[in-house]
Amino acid sequence: MSHNSFGKNLVFTSFGESHGSTIGCVIDGFPPGMHISAEEIKVELRRRATGQSRHTSQRKEKDDVQIVSGVFEGKTTGHPIALLIENTDARSKDYSDIATTFRPGHADYSYWHKYGIRDYRGGGRSSARETTMRVAAGALAKKWLKENHGVEIKAWLSQIGDIQLTKGDVSLIDSNPFFTGDVAKLPELEAFMDGLRKSGDSVGARIDAEAIGVPLGLGEPVYGKLDAELALAMMSINASKGVEIGAGFDSVSQKGSVHRDEIVGGEFQSNHAGGILAGITTGQPVTLSVAFKPTSSLRIPGRSENIHGEPIEVVTKGRHDPCVGIRATPIVEAMMALVIMDHILRHHAQTQSGKQS
Amino acid sequence: MSHNSFGKNLVFTSFGESHGSTIGCVIDGFPPGMHISAEEIKVELRRRATGQSRHTSQRKEKDDVQIVSGVFEGKTTGHPIALLIENTDARSKDYSDIATTFRPGHADYSYWHKYGIRDYRGGGRSSARETTMRVAAGALAKKWLKENHGVEIKAWLSQIGDIQLTKGDVSLIDSNPFFTGDVAKLPELEAFMDGLRKSGDSVGARIDAEAIGVPLGLGEPVYGKLDAELALAMMSINASKGVEIGAGFDSVSQKGSVHRDEIVGGEFQSNHAGGILAGITTGQPVTLSVAFKPTSSLRIPGRSENIHGEPIEVVTKGRHDPCVGIRATPIVEAMMALVIMDHILRHHAQTQSGKQS
Amino acid sequence: MSHNSFGKNLVFTSFGESHGSTIGCVIDGFPPGMHISAEEIKVELRRRATGQSRHTSQRKEKDDVQIVSGVFEGKTTGHPIALLIENTDARSKDYSDIATTFRPGHADYSYWHKYGIRDYRGGGRSSARETTMRVAAGALAKKWLKENHGVEIKAWLSQIGDIQLTKGDVSLIDSNPFFTGDVAKLPELEAFMDGLRKSGDSVGARIDAEAIGVPLGLGEPVYGKLDAELALAMMSINASKGVEIGAGFDSVSQKGSVHRDEIVGGEFQSNHAGGILAGITTGQPVTLSVAFKPTSSLRIPGRSENIHGEPIEVVTKGRHDPCVGIRATPIVEAMMALVIMDHILRHHAQTQSGKQS
Amino acid sequence: MSHNSFGKNLVFTSFGESHGSTIGCVIDGFPPGMHISAEEIKVELRRRATGQSRHTSQRKEKDDVQIVSGVFEGKTTGHPIALLIENTDARSKDYSDIATTFRPGHADYSYWHKYGIRDYRGGGRSSARETTMRVAAGALAKKWLKENHGVEIKAWLSQIGDIQLTKGDVSLIDSNPFFTGDVAKLPELEAFMDGLRKSGDSVGARIDAEAIGVPLGLGEPVYGKLDAELALAMMSINASKGVEIGAGFDSVSQKGSVHRDEIVGGEFQSNHAGGILAGITTGQPVTLSVAFKPTSSLRIPGRSENIHGEPIEVVTKGRHDPCVGIRATPIVEAMMALVIMDHILRHHAQTQSGKQS
Repeated sequence: MSHNSFGKNLVFTSFGESHGSTIGCVIDGFPPGMHISAEEIKVELRRRATGQSRHTSQRKEKDDVQIVSGVFEGKTTGHPIALLIENTDARSKDYSDIATTFRPGHADYSYWHKYGIRDYRGGGRSSARETTMRVAAGALAKKWLKENHGVEIKAWLSQIGDIQLTKGDVSLIDSNPFFTGDVAKLPELEAFMDGLRKSGDSVGARIDAEAIGVPLGLGEPVYGKLDAELALAMMSINASKGVEIGAGFDSVSQKGSVHRDEIVGGEFQSNHAGGILAGITTGQPVTLSVAFKPTSSLRIPGRSENIHGEPIEVVTKGRHDPCVGIRATPIVEAMMALVIMDHILRHHAQTQSGKQS
Repeated sequence: MSHNSFGKNLVFTSFGESHGSTIGCVIDGFPPGMHISAEEIKVELRRRATGQSRHTSQRKEKDDVQIVSGVFEGKTTGHPIALLIENTDARSKDYSDIATTFRPGHADYSYWHKYGIRDYRGGGRSSARETTMRVAAGALAKKWLKENHGVEIKAWLSQIGDIQLTKGDVSLIDSNPFFTGDVAKLPELEAFMDGLRKSGDSVGARIDAEAIGVPLGLGEPVYGKLDAELALAMMSINASKGVEIGAGFDSVSQKGSVHRDEIVGGEFQSNHAGGILAGITTGQPVTLSVAFKPTSSLRIPGRSENIHGEPIEVVTKGRHDPCVGIRATPIVEAMMALVIMDHILRHHAQTQSGKQS
Repeated sequence: MSHNSFGKNLVFTSFGESHGSTIGCVIDGFPPGMHISAEEIKVELRRRATGQSRHTSQRKEKDDVQIVSGVFEGKTTGHPIALLIENTDARSKDYSDIATTFRPGHADYSYWHKYGIRDYRGGGRSSARETTMRVAAGALAKKWLKENHGVEIKAWLSQIGDIQLTKGDVSLIDSNPFFTGDVAKLPELEAFMDGLRKSGDSVGARIDAEAIGVPLGLGEPVYGKLDAELALAMMSINASKGVEIGAGFDSVSQKGSVHRDEIVGGEFQSNHAGGILAGITTGQPVTLSVAFKPTSSLRIPGRSENIHGEPIEVVTKGRHDPCVGIRATPIVEAMMALVIMDHILRHHAQTQSGKQS
Repeated sequence: MSHNSFGKNLVFTSFGESHGSTIGCVIDGFPPGMHISAEEIKVELRRRATGQSRHTSQRKEKDDVQIVSGVFEGKTTGHPIALLIENTDARSKDYSDIATTFRPGHADYSYWHKYGIRDYRGGGRSSARETTMRVAAGALAKKWLKENHGVEIKAWLSQIGDIQLTKGDVSLIDSNPFFTGDVAKLPELEAFMDGLRKSGDSVGARIDAEAIGVPLGLGEPVYGKLDAELALAMMSINASKGVEIGAGFDSVSQKGSVHRDEIVGGEFQSNHAGGILAGITTGQPVTLSVAFKPTSSLRIPGRSENIHGEPIEVVTKGRHDPCVGIRATPIVEAMMALVIMDHILRHHAQTQSGKQS
């Protein structure tokens, strides 16, 4: 298994660096016969794109995705679907001064010591640019889940710094740059972000997500449990530092008599389980939360060392998000879609094969 | 890849049910030449065993592990190491009344709907009995990590219900049934657990863990990041609902100027990263936390339904832990050891192969 | 993926050495709900067993297989099925003189140089004893294929030394120790084998196999083609040196106008393809052949060296088959069954998942 | 694991169709620090290219490969290496009449029945066009093997139709369109091919290959044996119908006293094993042979049916090779290189990790 691949029966492989000529991905194992167009994928890509408000990095990429294989006359063929995007707004000069610098809290230090070589342009492979392809692949998975199983996946910002946000009106999440349905808080968020940007600092964020309509019975004990693979998927996203399923860390102080989700009249009375019992879905909504750390690319000087072990002071000048967590929202959705779709395929492999093919 | 396997170059596969005749595991890819005895494995198994204090399930298993392959004249041979343990204290009669019952918050419901068949004796495959083999396999990984890389892994109870515990004196963790080094809190813990047992209720727990001496450079971007695979490993443990790396969910309200770990004089000034940057170790201690939910096996009646969809009331009478999280401590250590050792092997595959073999 | 595992959605993992206490296997991903008993598995094991005629090794193993997990009340549960067999007739004293010896043509040399340690008792992990578990696992796969898809798999001896055998009467294959339906040749075979045994020499064999009723559409281009995975499966059997699909090496001198299997009236007019086109089944019988080398365990002295690089002369005294290829017949069937069943599960994962689960 | 991926620690994934806009591949797990240029890859691609003599298909592709990721300042970074080639000479009009036709002996039939949809242009995914990427990836593996372990891999045509060819002078293999060192036979080969082309028929071929300098100890019992994975690799090549290691099918009629490779004075006296004992290399040259069937694209009419089950007669008019086996020579080398390199990485993972990283 490649380290840049994800999934078992639906396998997603990404490649490309922040400032390379092209980024791309290969989706293998996708069922044949689904209609898909580049335009449908772009709808999701635009949700993730930078440069759309003053609150995100000003890098402007067209994200003009091309489907170069696996689709014939508009339909998936069952063969590997390759998607390519050319990088068009990669300003390598912004990064030349960090070729020998380890920015505090960045991949620079660990990449250099691991590989002995580092593509320092815009973070190279460690850049969030890679997540573009996750969103692209997720667009196919979301469509397939919707069409075939009626699954709907939605994520939103639930906390940024100390500002707590309610789920609010889900239909409004895409109407603002904060991915929040708690639109009454928008002025507070704008003010907070403007202050942050001025101070040259950054902040963390919490994203909540929900998948509705997930079939009962998905998840593969004991090392392919749905929650375990969702945890891997979420923790693989840049800047992620924590994952919760259902009640998450609140479970620690809960009593069993509270946590267990009783059933009355065929209906669960609560969903502390987050829709997953013993690693397998119950038919309730699958719910999770992800913690994202504040980016370490700051205008406030930080102490570090260079590749020669000499002490240095680092000030980041490139284009960066003061809160990378916000834009993680569509990435969380995409990863959730890829995991759930893969599990539907796996589940069917084991349980629905005793029939004439 | 089997769903009951874990790892890439070091692959661990477990099998067996709570009340089957035998549980076991196969460890493949283990380097040849390490001395190992069944007795060394039993030392770790006794740390996890039930029936040793009044605060855990009274099931008493000898856990008399046998090494049946992969070891010759006391040393690993490089071939699959199979470990077997016979179940000796499995009282199936305790469970006969739940054959058609879905206990609230249990695997019963999801397993039944997934497979259409369920080994209801003691939870069958979903029982924490399976984790015995994780600890057994972890014993080998811990020994190898210590001998070859000086890595030390330690976990402890950091919260139970609303009682917060400090790390305290790590050398005392194994001296009490709560895996706490904060021994001043022992009377409070005893009293809390006695009250809980009397009430027939249960409670959640939080386990913290630390690996010291982990080599710099482990972890494989972007889907085999060390933190992502630790998240999968931890979330695969029974009753786990959340995982944090380093600062975890506290990152959400942190500023970047606080979170980033500055380097002065070659030394990191903090460890909010939990020893992992961009999925790769930095040489700092790898730190994580895991949330465990309260067990749903309670003497307090709960409302549910049976396999026929009829409403029922469930009272659990079998032997159970009022806090399953406590005993997860050695399991967390074992999973951490298996992940880190696997990553050392993977890292060497890619980076140290340009030599005459 | 473990190196001692095989398959993708149906995963088979074996462990154990020739003279260890126990050999075993784990079968994961098996569909739930199939009836299976140890007795049904033993039927296949007896077909492979040694010590049943004077033409095979005189080692007599009871092969008293136990199902220790994954089966509840006689039916598979969807969880890992573990099978164990205790070794009872392992005479380690026969092998003590070869502890430092590299027998010519044996695993001794390559194992020692790879691992730096070697379980020399009866060949350790390299012994054909391991194939017992392949046959055991294959018994489950054969039953499932028969019950769910009507697939029948049969292998037979087609050549031994220079004696060519026709397919003959398939129903007679299991009635003689040579797995031949060409029963007219039995006297010639008996005489040939008796002469071989007296001379202390050994000989190779060719096994042909056929799977009838294999569903159309199995196989996964381009690296999971059915023929490619059959080749891996067959070449993984001890002593195998060659694999052919359909016309095999005869294709080299064939013209395209002869090789291509024309279709008339919905019927293929020939089967040079061996039932596989472009890695995918056509619905015709899947046919293959495997070449097995002569065992190198001879009473005729052979020149070699020991672990110190000193020249030695080796004469094998233990119990051995003069033609290991003969007994490979049920192993070929078992591996074929495991591959085909795995591919049915994979195929369904991709093509039959667009339905409510 | 993706079905379009190959390998374990070195993972190669290909994508793209014969007449799609682009074909490509991703190579993951490649060690960092190796110099590589597009030009070095093109050297290998030109060896495989069509349109260079009258004996191969007249499709002329520039195969202008681009390295779009994983290489920085001319050196591999340890991240996924993506290679892309645009298809420039794909004449889809040649194929429009076969949209509903199953050409005898072709992927058309099996692909259609498997997926229910088929990219019929030039064979789509089943086209030998895919093997371009194998050769491209193999170029990197060959270079790495040479530089780091001194391994040399060479393949040549050993039989075409009934014409047997000796190994001859290996240095001349690349000097003629038949990949033969037996240059005395060139006039006979030319005449044979000219006759074949005139008749509108095709013929099979046998390719022999050899890897010299392969380190002792590569290969992973019992399902990752080197010979087993070479068999999978070779059988995954288009049109392959058989694989032999060392003596191959000749082993069937050999005596053990002949087959076993004795050692005298530290030297093997023969190499019937093909450099592999019990799945592990011995340090002798690794030798294998592959059988390729005659292409089914003929100008001689063949009987078949269309997607509606109606009888049809098929005559192929597109550009095709009368003997696809010849051009398989560099593909065999490439696959051999990928397998051996992957096994060096795997071997080091298990056996060389007990050191400070």
